[in-house]
Amino acid sequence: MTTLYGYFRSSAAYRVRIAMHLKGLAFEQAPVNLVKGEQRGEDNLARNPQGLVPSLVTDDGLVLNQSLAICEYLDETHPEPALLPGDAAGRARVRALAQLVACEVHPLNNLRVLKYLVGELGVEEDAKLAWYRYWIAEGFQALEAMLTREAGTGDFCHGDTPTLADLCLVPQVFNAERFECDLSAYPRIRRIVANCRALPAFEQAAPGAQPDAG
Amino acid sequence: MTTLYGYFRSSAAYRVRIAMHLKGLAFEQAPVNLVKGEQRGEDNLARNPQGLVPSLVTDDGLVLNQSLAICEYLDETHPEPALLPGDAAGRARVRALAQLVACEVHPLNNLRVLKYLVGELGVEEDAKLAWYRYWIAEGFQALEAMLTREAGTGDFCHGDTPTLADLCLVPQVFNAERFECDLSAYPRIRRIVANCRALPAFEQAAPGAQPDAG
Repeated sequence: MTTLYGYFRSSAAYRVRIAMHLKGLAFEQAPVNLVKGEQRGEDNLARNPQGLVPSLVTDDGLVLNQSLAICEYLDETHPEPALLPGDAAGRARVRALAQLVACEVHPLNNLRVLKYLVGELGVEEDAKLAWYRYWIAEGFQALEAMLTREAGTGDFCHGDTPTLADLCLVPQVFNAERFECDLSAYPRIRRIVANCRALPAFEQAAPGAQPDAG
Repeated sequence: MTTLYGYFRSSAAYRVRIAMHLKGLAFEQAPVNLVKGEQRGEDNLARNPQGLVPSLVTDDGLVLNQSLAICEYLDETHPEPALLPGDAAGRARVRALAQLVACEVHPLNNLRVLKYLVGELGVEEDAKLAWYRYWIAEGFQALEAMLTREAGTGDFCHGDTPTLADLCLVPQVFNAERFECDLSAYPRIRRIVANCRALPAFEQAAPGAQPDAG
């Protein structure tokens, strides 16, 4: 059976879990404990030379890395329900919204980066939190502006069904809440996230619902 | 005419320039000077609420953001030569290699991040350089391992023609060289980059060949 190597709190793994549940695909989960450093163990490095999660190993042995690449693969091989719109301009918008989170916000607030700040640079807890919240605010201000002024927005980031953009947004908001970021300035983001959370697929994919949730 | 709002040294703009030249598409360039802070000006924020570059504005007025989303749009609307392989597994591999650079290396070494380290966190020049080189080494070690052990690698990251992965790799290596990172441990990366640089499209897209090169 297809196996997802992930961690309950990893936002990147969370994105893939949402995609799997939205498409109704069966999968096993194999937890890689990021706090214990298992991502740097030989087993995980053999699958994922970056020492990260998630990896998806399909039942025919294909090893896939990088959450957005995995989600696009799932969308190509199991097209329904679609995670990307049918038109090129719409796909470009959804990918741009997804990448705003995946390339501009999430990478800066990753566990390994926070560890470097504290360990190598001797950054204090307060300054670490300020860093975290700064990049969330930078990204969410831009995202809120785009979601508000662009005609493509609907009940979800693009139209009235969840797309790759929502798969990135919901885990990022989960993280922001965990770090007690003030989200009051982002009503459009909050409304979309509420719509997502009302769907069973998002509920099933939530960190607290995973077998390794601590 | 299609206009690329970018900056000669921006790796994200560089990726899009390579795609445009590979596909032989005509475009104008409108420089946004990142050192002068023009990306935060009203004009740029109207196109790109994140205050980043690049944006591509097509001749029918469509505004596209996020370099990988733009490159995929160009690939969908101008399929030849293809930036992604024809099979889903190949596309997943190319996107994963591209995202390794675009989601794990580049975001940490962006100008705005280096500014935060120095300005907000008071990081010294030496420690800033060490940060820069650390994330390059983390990413390139993984990339070198993948390119070496995976059968998909050819003269380029995937097969014998340039793909989205090479579009990300070449600008990242340009940056690494600028920051005097030691690349001797990455022979596979260096060979692929040399093959890319031998192509006119990569030469035309290089920072030094741009109208705003300082």
